Amino acid sequence: MTGITSHGEKRLVLVSGRAHPALATDVSAALGSELVPTTAYDFANGEIYVRFEESVRGCDAFVLQSHTSPINQWLMEQLIMVDALKRASAKRITVVAPFYPYARQDKKHKGREPISARLVADLFKTAGADRLMSVDLHAAQTQGFFDGPVDHLWAMPILTDYVRTRVDTGNVTVVSPDAGRIRVAEQWAAKLGGGPLAFVHKTRDISRPNQSVANRVVGEVQGRTCVLVDDLIDTGGTIAEAVKVVLAAGASDVIVAATHGVLSEPAARRLSECGAREVIVTDSLPITAEKRFPTLTVLPIAPLLARAIREVFDDGSVTSLFDGNA
Amino acid sequence: MTGITSHGEKRLVLVSGRAHPALATDVSAALGSELVPTTAYDFANGEIYVRFEESVRGCDAFVLQSHTSPINQWLMEQLIMVDALKRASAKRITVVAPFYPYARQDKKHKGREPISARLVADLFKTAGADRLMSVDLHAAQTQGFFDGPVDHLWAMPILTDYVRTRVDTGNVTVVSPDAGRIRVAEQWAAKLGGGPLAFVHKTRDISRPNQSVANRVVGEVQGRTCVLVDDLIDTGGTIAEAVKVVLAAGASDVIVAATHGVLSEPAARRLSECGAREVIVTDSLPITAEKRFPTLTVLPIAPLLARAIREVFDDGSVTSLFDGNA
Amino acid sequence: MTGITSHGEKRLVLVSGRAHPALATDVSAALGSELVPTTAYDFANGEIYVRFEESVRGCDAFVLQSHTSPINQWLMEQLIMVDALKRASAKRITVVAPFYPYARQDKKHKGREPISARLVADLFKTAGADRLMSVDLHAAQTQGFFDGPVDHLWAMPILTDYVRTRVDTGNVTVVSPDAGRIRVAEQWAAKLGGGPLAFVHKTRDISRPNQSVANRVVGEVQGRTCVLVDDLIDTGGTIAEAVKVVLAAGASDVIVAATHGVLSEPAARRLSECGAREVIVTDSLPITAEKRFPTLTVLPIAPLLARAIREVFDDGSVTSLFDGNA
Amino acid sequence: MTGITSHGEKRLVLVSGRAHPALATDVSAALGSELVPTTAYDFANGEIYVRFEESVRGCDAFVLQSHTSPINQWLMEQLIMVDALKRASAKRITVVAPFYPYARQDKKHKGREPISARLVADLFKTAGADRLMSVDLHAAQTQGFFDGPVDHLWAMPILTDYVRTRVDTGNVTVVSPDAGRIRVAEQWAAKLGGGPLAFVHKTRDISRPNQSVANRVVGEVQGRTCVLVDDLIDTGGTIAEAVKVVLAAGASDVIVAATHGVLSEPAARRLSECGAREVIVTDSLPITAEKRFPTLTVLPIAPLLARAIREVFDDGSVTSLFDGNA
Amino acid sequence: MTGITSHGEKRLVLVSGRAHPALATDVSAALGSELVPTTAYDFANGEIYVRFEESVRGCDAFVLQSHTSPINQWLMEQLIMVDALKRASAKRITVVAPFYPYARQDKKHKGREPISARLVADLFKTAGADRLMSVDLHAAQTQGFFDGPVDHLWAMPILTDYVRTRVDTGNVTVVSPDAGRIRVAEQWAAKLGGGPLAFVHKTRDISRPNQSVANRVVGEVQGRTCVLVDDLIDTGGTIAEAVKVVLAAGASDVIVAATHGVLSEPAARRLSECGAREVIVTDSLPITAEKRFPTLTVLPIAPLLARAIREVFDDGSVTSLFDGNA
Amino acid sequence: MTGITSHGEKRLVLVSGRAHPALATDVSAALGSELVPTTAYDFANGEIYVRFEESVRGCDAFVLQSHTSPINQWLMEQLIMVDALKRASAKRITVVAPFYPYARQDKKHKGREPISARLVADLFKTAGADRLMSVDLHAAQTQGFFDGPVDHLWAMPILTDYVRTRVDTGNVTVVSPDAGRIRVAEQWAAKLGGGPLAFVHKTRDISRPNQSVANRVVGEVQGRTCVLVDDLIDTGGTIAEAVKVVLAAGASDVIVAATHGVLSEPAARRLSECGAREVIVTDSLPITAEKRFPTLTVLPIAPLLARAIREVFDDGSVTSLFDGNA
Repeated sequence: MTGITSHGEKRLVLVSGRAHPALATDVSAALGSELVPTTAYDFANGEIYVRFEESVRGCDAFVLQSHTSPINQWLMEQLIMVDALKRASAKRITVVAPFYPYARQDKKHKGREPISARLVADLFKTAGADRLMSVDLHAAQTQGFFDGPVDHLWAMPILTDYVRTRVDTGNVTVVSPDAGRIRVAEQWAAKLGGGPLAFVHKTRDISRPNQSVANRVVGEVQGRTCVLVDDLIDTGGTIAEAVKVVLAAGASDVIVAATHGVLSEPAARRLSECGAREVIVTDSLPITAEKRFPTLTVLPIAPLLARAIREVFDDGSVTSLFDGNA
Repeated sequence: MTGITSHGEKRLVLVSGRAHPALATDVSAALGSELVPTTAYDFANGEIYVRFEESVRGCDAFVLQSHTSPINQWLMEQLIMVDALKRASAKRITVVAPFYPYARQDKKHKGREPISARLVADLFKTAGADRLMSVDLHAAQTQGFFDGPVDHLWAMPILTDYVRTRVDTGNVTVVSPDAGRIRVAEQWAAKLGGGPLAFVHKTRDISRPNQSVANRVVGEVQGRTCVLVDDLIDTGGTIAEAVKVVLAAGASDVIVAATHGVLSEPAARRLSECGAREVIVTDSLPITAEKRFPTLTVLPIAPLLARAIREVFDDGSVTSLFDGNA
Repeated sequence: MTGITSHGEKRLVLVSGRAHPALATDVSAALGSELVPTTAYDFANGEIYVRFEESVRGCDAFVLQSHTSPINQWLMEQLIMVDALKRASAKRITVVAPFYPYARQDKKHKGREPISARLVADLFKTAGADRLMSVDLHAAQTQGFFDGPVDHLWAMPILTDYVRTRVDTGNVTVVSPDAGRIRVAEQWAAKLGGGPLAFVHKTRDISRPNQSVANRVVGEVQGRTCVLVDDLIDTGGTIAEAVKVVLAAGASDVIVAATHGVLSEPAARRLSECGAREVIVTDSLPITAEKRFPTLTVLPIAPLLARAIREVFDDGSVTSLFDGNA
Repeated sequence: MTGITSHGEKRLVLVSGRAHPALATDVSAALGSELVPTTAYDFANGEIYVRFEESVRGCDAFVLQSHTSPINQWLMEQLIMVDALKRASAKRITVVAPFYPYARQDKKHKGREPISARLVADLFKTAGADRLMSVDLHAAQTQGFFDGPVDHLWAMPILTDYVRTRVDTGNVTVVSPDAGRIRVAEQWAAKLGGGPLAFVHKTRDISRPNQSVANRVVGEVQGRTCVLVDDLIDTGGTIAEAVKVVLAAGASDVIVAATHGVLSEPAARRLSECGAREVIVTDSLPITAEKRFPTLTVLPIAPLLARAIREVFDDGSVTSLFDGNA
Repeated sequence: MTGITSHGEKRLVLVSGRAHPALATDVSAALGSELVPTTAYDFANGEIYVRFEESVRGCDAFVLQSHTSPINQWLMEQLIMVDALKRASAKRITVVAPFYPYARQDKKHKGREPISARLVADLFKTAGADRLMSVDLHAAQTQGFFDGPVDHLWAMPILTDYVRTRVDTGNVTVVSPDAGRIRVAEQWAAKLGGGPLAFVHKTRDISRPNQSVANRVVGEVQGRTCVLVDDLIDTGGTIAEAVKVVLAAGASDVIVAATHGVLSEPAARRLSECGAREVIVTDSLPITAEKRFPTLTVLPIAPLLARAIREVFDDGSVTSLFDGNA
Repeated sequence: MTGITSHGEKRLVLVSGRAHPALATDVSAALGSELVPTTAYDFANGEIYVRFEESVRGCDAFVLQSHTSPINQWLMEQLIMVDALKRASAKRITVVAPFYPYARQDKKHKGREPISARLVADLFKTAGADRLMSVDLHAAQTQGFFDGPVDHLWAMPILTDYVRTRVDTGNVTVVSPDAGRIRVAEQWAAKLGGGPLAFVHKTRDISRPNQSVANRVVGEVQGRTCVLVDDLIDTGGTIAEAVKVVLAAGASDVIVAATHGVLSEPAARRLSECGAREVIVTDSLPITAEKRFPTLTVLPIAPLLARAIREVFDDGSVTSLFDGNA
C-alpha cells in the first residue's frame, strides 16, 4: 500500500506556569521527568509572553498551574500555554489545576451573576485543553462543566492518614463549618471510624434583635476532639468562628483540616488565634512565609499529582486516586 | 435606502409534549394563550412523530414537558419538538422542564459513570434550545451545565405559604433527610421564622456489627413539629425512614414537603404508612390516581410557570420568581 | 529530549446496551473479545444508570445497541454510555446502531416537522461519538447527517445468498412494495441474475370515487416467483398488501426479504396470513417469541458486525463489507 | 430603568451574486425592492472581491446566487458575500440557492467518496448563513444536511400548470427516466389526474454479451402521451435515451419537464434530436443562447422566489409554497 | 392565530468594568445614558465577583473595559461580565475594548509561541460576545481573529486634527519608528498634505563589531518637523530612540503621536527627556498621574466610542467612524 | 483485561489535487512515497468528483493543492478531498497550501468587505482539516485565522541562497516595492549582509494636479544593485513600476525575487520589459509556458515541502524550516 509507515510512540511532557515553581519541581521529580524548558515573562503592561524551548509535537502534554493570587494572571498564563501547545501540535493537552479557579462561583446565587466556574471550564476548552485534572473540587458538579474527561483527585486520604496520627479516633467528632458541606464531613467521619457528626448553623437569635446572626452547633461535641473539615480555607473567617463556637460548646480540642490553603489575609492571624490545636493543609497552593504560623502543618500534594499524571499517560486502570470511590 | 421595512412584532407561543396535559392546560389558561395545535403520536415501534399545525415562524416559543415515567420517551419527544421548532424558523426556543430529567446524576459518584445531567443540557442545546426554565434543581450547579440562560424558578414560597397554615411556626424544627441537603433545610428554617435545624445521619452502628448502617438524628427534635424537606420524593424510602427516625427521637408531629412528587412505586404505601401527618408536593409531575393517598396534598405549579414565561417574554425585571434571592 | 516515552498500543473494547443481549454476545464471540463488564439499570422513575466496571482509558470503544421498542429508552441508554466513555477517556468512540433509529424521519414531509434522523446523528455527536456504524440505512443520505465517518454496512449479500438457495433465479421478478424503493429492488435484481423488475403503485381509482386509493402492479409478475424486498418491515401492512396484489396479478410464488425485522404488532399475523411462502429478516433487532411465525426465517447479522468492527480497529483496507460497492 | 430605548424595525435586503443577473432583477422586481448596490469582480488570479455599497446593519438579508457553471466560482462568491454580511452586522442571513450545488453527491456511492452536498451545507453555515432556501432538491434529505431552517420550495405547480395546457390529461402516462426517481413521477401522476406510471429500467441484456446494459420500459406507455419528469437535466443523456426508449415502446408523444435546466453540452443537441415534442424547464439557472433550441420552453421561477422571501420576512403562515404539502 | 403578541422594542445598555471609571463616565455622558448599576469586587484571593443590579433581559448590551495593567485582571473581569450578561438573557453583547489586549502577539514570531490575540478573540466569543469594538488595532488582521462583526474605529482623525494645529503641514515629514509600521505613517502623510515619509531602520553596523545594532533614518528629515507616529507607546524605548535618531539626522523639531498611551515604566522619563516637543495620546487607557509629564497631551476618546455605540444600536449607515475608509 | 490489543503504527499518505501535478510528483519523489491513487474529474456543469482508490483509514494524510487560477475550483477540490478523507476515517488531515488562497483579503480595507482569508481557514476547518501548512504567508497573522496548528514554512533561504550567487552582497540595497512590506525587506537585508534598505512610496505630486499619484524611492539606491523583494508577484504592475523607479533613481542593476509566481496576465510582458536583470520565483504555483520569459528563474519548492511533511509526521524537533526563527 502507498505511504510511509513507522512505529508509533508516545511521549509525556510536563510544562508549568510560574505560580508555584516548587510544586512543579516536586511533581517532575516524583514523575521522573524534567520540566519542558520554557520562557515566560510579563511585558511592562502586564501581558504575558510564553514560549517552549523544545519541540512538543505529538506529545501528551500536562500543563500545571497553581491558581494562587494574582489568580487571573495565572489563569491567563495557563490559557496562553495551552494555546501555544495546541499551535505547536501537541497531541493531547491536560490542564492540571490542583485548586480549580473560581470553583465557588459554580451557580447563580442571585440573578444576573455569572457562573464563573463554568466560564473557566469553557475557556480551558477554547484554548485547546482536551482534559482537566483537579483536586477536591468545591462541588463535584464542576466536573460536568467541562466538555471532556475530568480526573478528579481526592486528597482526603493524605489528610486523614495524617490526622489519624494526631487524634484518638475513638473520641473524634467531625464538624462541618456550615450547613452546605456536611456531605464532606460525613465522608471524613466514615474514614475516621464512624464517629458522630456535627455542623455549625447560622441562625437569627430572636432574643437579641440588633445582632441578627449567631452560630450554633448542631450535634454532639461536648468533651470530644473535634476535626473541622473543609475543601479550602480562604480568609479563615468562617473556620475561625467555627472553632470558637465548637470550643464554647464544650469541645476538648479542635483540629482543622482542608485540602487547599488559600490563606488570604488575615487567615494566618485568625487561625493562629482561634484556639485550634493544629491547622492542616496541602501545598496545592504556595504557602508563602507570610501565610505560615506555628500551628500550621503543610502536607505535600506532588506525589498524588505525579501518580495521577502517570496513570493517565499509561491509560492505567488503577483508579483508586480518583473521586471518592474510583 | 434599499430594502423593505416593516415594524417588528413579537409573538409568544406555548407548545407542549404529551406527558402532563393537565399542566399544559393550566399553564396556557394562566397565561391567557391557547396551546399551539400539535400532532404527536407514537409509531408502532415507539418512534415519535410530531408536527405543529400552525406557523411558528419568528415566534418566541416555550416548549413544556413534564419528565415523568417513561422519562426517556418524554425527553426524546421534547428534543424532537425543539428540532421541529428550529427548522420551522422559531426565533427563540425555551425548554420548560419543571422537573429536570437526570438531575441527580450531576457528577461522577464513581469512575466511569456518565454525567447525565450535563448530557441532557447538551442534548437540549444541540436540538436547538436557546434557553432553559426549570424549578428547584436538585443542585443549583446544574444551571451551569447549559450554555445559555437558565431561569431557575423557586417553588419554596408555594410550599412554605401552605405549611405556615398547617403548623405553629414557633414550635417547628426543619429537618433534612440526609447530610447533603441541609442547605435547603436552612433556607426553609429562615423562611419559617428561624427555628432550629436537624438532619438524619447515616452511620455505622458499632454495637451491632451485622447491621452496618443506622440512622441517627443530629439536632433538636424532641417534642417539636418537624418539617422534613427535600427537592423531590421518588420511591419515598429515604423520607419514610427519616420520618420514623424523627418520630422515634421524640418529635410530636411530622410534615413532609417537597417540590417534585416523582412518587414511584412504592412511595404511596411507604408515605401513607410512615407516620407523617401530611405529605405536600406540587403538580410539576403528574400525580396519577395510583400515586395518591389520603394524607397527600398537591399544590398547583402552573401559576408560577405562567408568570415566569410571561416575564421572560416581556424582558421583565421582576426577578422575585427566580432563584432564592433574585 | 525532556519527557517520558513509551510504546503506543491500541485496545479495542466492545460495550453493549441492554436492548438485545443475544446480539451483543454473538458479536463479542465472533470478535473473540469479551464485552466490557457493565452495570446498567433503571431507577424507579425510568432514569437509566450506567457504569463500566473496567478501565476504558485510551481504548477504541464500540458501543452496540439495537434500537427496538422502547426505542427512546435504548437510544438514551446508548447516549449515556457514550457520555460515560468520553468522560472515562476513551480514545475513539464508535456507535454501532445496526438499525438506525428514526431513519424514516429523514426529511420534512410537511412543514413544521422535525428531521429526527438528523437530530439523532447530532445527539450521538454531542454525547461524544466519533464514528457511526449502521446497516442498510433507510436512505443512504443519512450518512451525511453525521459529521464524521459512517461505516454503512450492507446486509444484502447475507439475504441474497440465502434467497438464491430458495428460488430458481431464472424465473425471479424482484418487486418493490412502493415507488420510492425501486433503486434497492434494482440492486437485488442485478445480484440475482438480472431478471425483470416491478413495483406496486398506489393510485386513485377513478371508477370508485368513495375508495380513493388502489394498488396496482407495474411490471411483469405473471407466473413468476416474486421476491419482495425492502430495508425494513414494521407493522407489515404495506408488505402484506403488496404480497396480495402481486399474487392477484398472477405471481406463482412470493418471498419477502428485508434487513430489519421491526415486526411491530400485528406484523406476525399479517405476514403469516398474506400468502408469502417465506419471510426473511436478519436479527439486527431482537425477534422475540411473539414476533415469530412459521414462515419466518431469521439470519444472523453478528458476523457482519464483528468483521466490520475488526476492520475499523485494524484500519483495514478490505472494504467489501461497506456500501454497495466499497 | 437605565438605558436608551427605541422602537424596533426590520428591514429586508436582497443581495445577489453575478451568476444570473436576469434572475436577480426579476426577483427584486417581483419583491418590489431594489438589489443592494454591490461591487464584485475577479482579481487576475481568479480571487473574488466583494463589497456592499450600502449599510446592511441589522438587516434580514437574502443572498441570491444561481449555481451554474463555473459552479465553484459562484459558490465561493456566495460564501464570501455571506461572510461580508456577517461581518457587516446583518441580523439574519438566508442563502437563496434555487439549484442546490453538488446536490447529487448526497451520499457515498462507494467508499472514500465525499458527501459534497453536506459539505456545501456546512460551508454555508460556517460562512455565516442562518437559513437556506432552495427549489426542488435532488433528494429531500438534503434539507437535513443544514443545521437550521431550510425553506424547500416546490416548483412542480409551475410546471404542471403549464403541462396541463399542453396535453390531454386523460391520456397521459408519467414516466421516470430511472428507477430512483419514481416517487417524483408518482407525485406528478397524482397532480395530473391519477393516470398510470412507468419507468425506464437499465438491465443487462443476456442475449448480447458485448453490450452490457439495455434500457427497458416498465409500465404502460403504448399509444399514450408520456410526460418524462425529473428534477434536473444536465447533459441530457439519460433523458434523451429515455425519450427514445419510450417512443420505441409505442408512446404516441413525449414531453419532458424538469425544474432545473443545467443543460451542459451537448444537452441542446441531444434534446432537440431525441424526438420529444417539447422540453420544459424553469430559469432557476441561466439558459444562455447556446443552451436553447426550438422545442425548449423556459418558465419563470422569480415569482416563486419573491413570494417565499416575502413570506419568510413576514414570518407568514401561508405555507403552500413549501414542500409538497406545507 | 394562537399566541400572545406585543410590539418589539430595543434597549441599549452600557456596562463597564473597573479599569477606567473616568472613561466609562465620559462615554455614558456622551451617549446620554446612565451606566447599569453594577457590583464588582475582588475576593481576598483575587477572584472577581460581578453582578448587575438591574435587569438586562433582551438588551443590546455594550461592555466597556480598558485593558491597562493589571491587564489579565481586567480581561478576566470583562469575560465574567459577558458571561453574566449572557446568562441574564441579554439579546446581543458587544465587547468594547478600545485597546485590544495582547494585540502585539498576533502571530508566531518563533515556533512554539501562542497567538494570544486570537486566543483573546476566542475567549470573548466563548464567554458570549456577539460583537467586538476596538480602536486602531495593532494589525488590522486582528479583525479576522473574531468570528463575528468587528467595529474597528479609527482615532487618527482625532490626532491629525490636533496635530494640524501644532505644525506647519508644508514642512512635515511623517516618520515611522520602525520598518513594520510604515503603512500607518503613509496614511498620516496623506492626511497631513502628502509630505515625505521616512522610517528608522535597525541595522548591523559593520564598522563597530561589538555593538551589533544601530538605528539609521531612511528618508528625508533634514530641517523638517517630524511627526513620529505609532499605534501605541508602551515603555517608550523605541519611540524615544527614534526621536533621538531623527534629531541627530537634522530634524528641526519632533512631535510624537499615538492612539494608545500604555506608558509603562519608564515611559514618562524617557519621553520627557528624549527631545520631542510634544507627545500626544488619547485616553483609551487611563493616564494616571505617574504616567504624566509636561509635554504630554491627552485627547478624549469617549466621543468616538459613544458615537460608534449609538450607530451600532441604531443600525446606522454612517460608517465614517470605522476603518480607514468606511 | 477485556479487549483486543494490537501495536499501533502510523502511516503517512500524500494526496494531491489536480492543480499542479508536477509539484505533487516532485514532493512525493522527495518524500519517497507514491501519491495515493485518486480519481478526480469535473462533471459537465463543473461539479467536482473525487475518490481515493486505496484505504486511508487511520492515516496521517497530507492534502496538497496549488492555488492557481481557476483558484475557486482548486480550493473547492481541496475541500472536497478533505471531506472525503474525514469520512474515510483518516486520523489526521493536514492541508498543504503553499500559496494560501485569498491571503491578501486578510482584513477589511473598507466597511462591508469580507475577510476572505479567515473564511478560507474556517472552510478548511469545517471540511475536516486538523492542520495547515503554507509558505510565506502574505501576512503572518493569517496563521491565527486557523483554529489549530499552522506550519508556516519559510522560502527565503531558497531565494537568498540563489541571489547570493548572482550579486555582490557588498553593493546590495534591498528594496520594498511598497510601504507595507518593508519588514520583509529588512529580513532580506539582514540575510544578505546588513546592507541598506529602501522602499517605493506612492505620493501625490502637488505640481501635477491631473496625475494624482507618483512613486518615489525613499532610501539609498544610487549606483547599487537593488534586490526588489515581495511575497508574491501577481500581474507585476507594482513590481515593474518599482523597478523603473529604482532604475530612474540611479540603481545600477535590479533583481526581483518573490516566493509565489502568480504571474497573471500581463506579468510576463511587464516583467520582461521593465528593466530587471532577473526575476526569481519558486514553483509553489505552476509556471506555465505562457507565464515564462527569458529573464525568469524558477527554483524548486518541493524539497522544502517534503522535508516539512516528514518532520510533521515524525513529530520532529528540527524547526529550522518554520517561520523566520523556528
